[in-house]
Amino acid sequence: MKKLSAPEQDRFFEDFPAFSPTDNKEGAKASFKFDDFNEAFGVMTRIAIKADQMDHHPEWFNVYNKLDITLTTHDVGGLSEKDVELATFITKIIPENQG
Amino acid sequence: MKKLSAPEQDRFFEDFPAFSPTDNKEGAKASFKFDDFNEAFGVMTRIAIKADQMDHHPEWFNVYNKLDITLTTHDVGGLSEKDVELATFITKIIPENQG
Repeated sequence: MKKLSAPEQDRFFEDFPAFSPTDNKEGAKASFKFDDFNEAFGVMTRIAIKADQMDHHPEWFNVYNKLDITLTTHDVGGLSEKDVELATFITKIIPENQG
Repeated sequence: MKKLSAPEQDRFFEDFPAFSPTDNKEGAKASFKFDDFNEAFGVMTRIAIKADQMDHHPEWFNVYNKLDITLTTHDVGGLSEKDVELATFITKIIPENQG
């Protein structure tokens, strides 16, 4: 597992506009809003199954219909291909208008 | 829905020692640690189903095997009987040694 290069990181934030760099520059964060808790937790469950399959887990905060997700790869102190894979999945299952 | 009285709040924190007052004194927070993400998210799922049945939802943060939960009732600006019910459920399903 390697840390994304600077150009790869730039590409990450272009490819996944819902995400922006975390304050410490070691991760990518996004906030989503859903119709209600049921929908938010349904999305969380899909991400949880994917994350556990990958053995690569998000940091996330939820209250009612809001979900904040931070992706980072602690082993490399930044973003890695695993974060690209998880961001790809998240972006696929969350419609754009909820970003 | 009424805010718990001061004696009722004291009783809350005696009955649920995993919880302590939030900094703003309007809620109760607890941190739990599990064997892995699978176990943490399993517990979250049980709490989510209960919360949605009650229409009373936690604020929570999860990363891998760690889970931070805050209970509060925004409508009363503090703890209510709904928080007692949710704390009772959480305490019942999370073994003490994981508090």
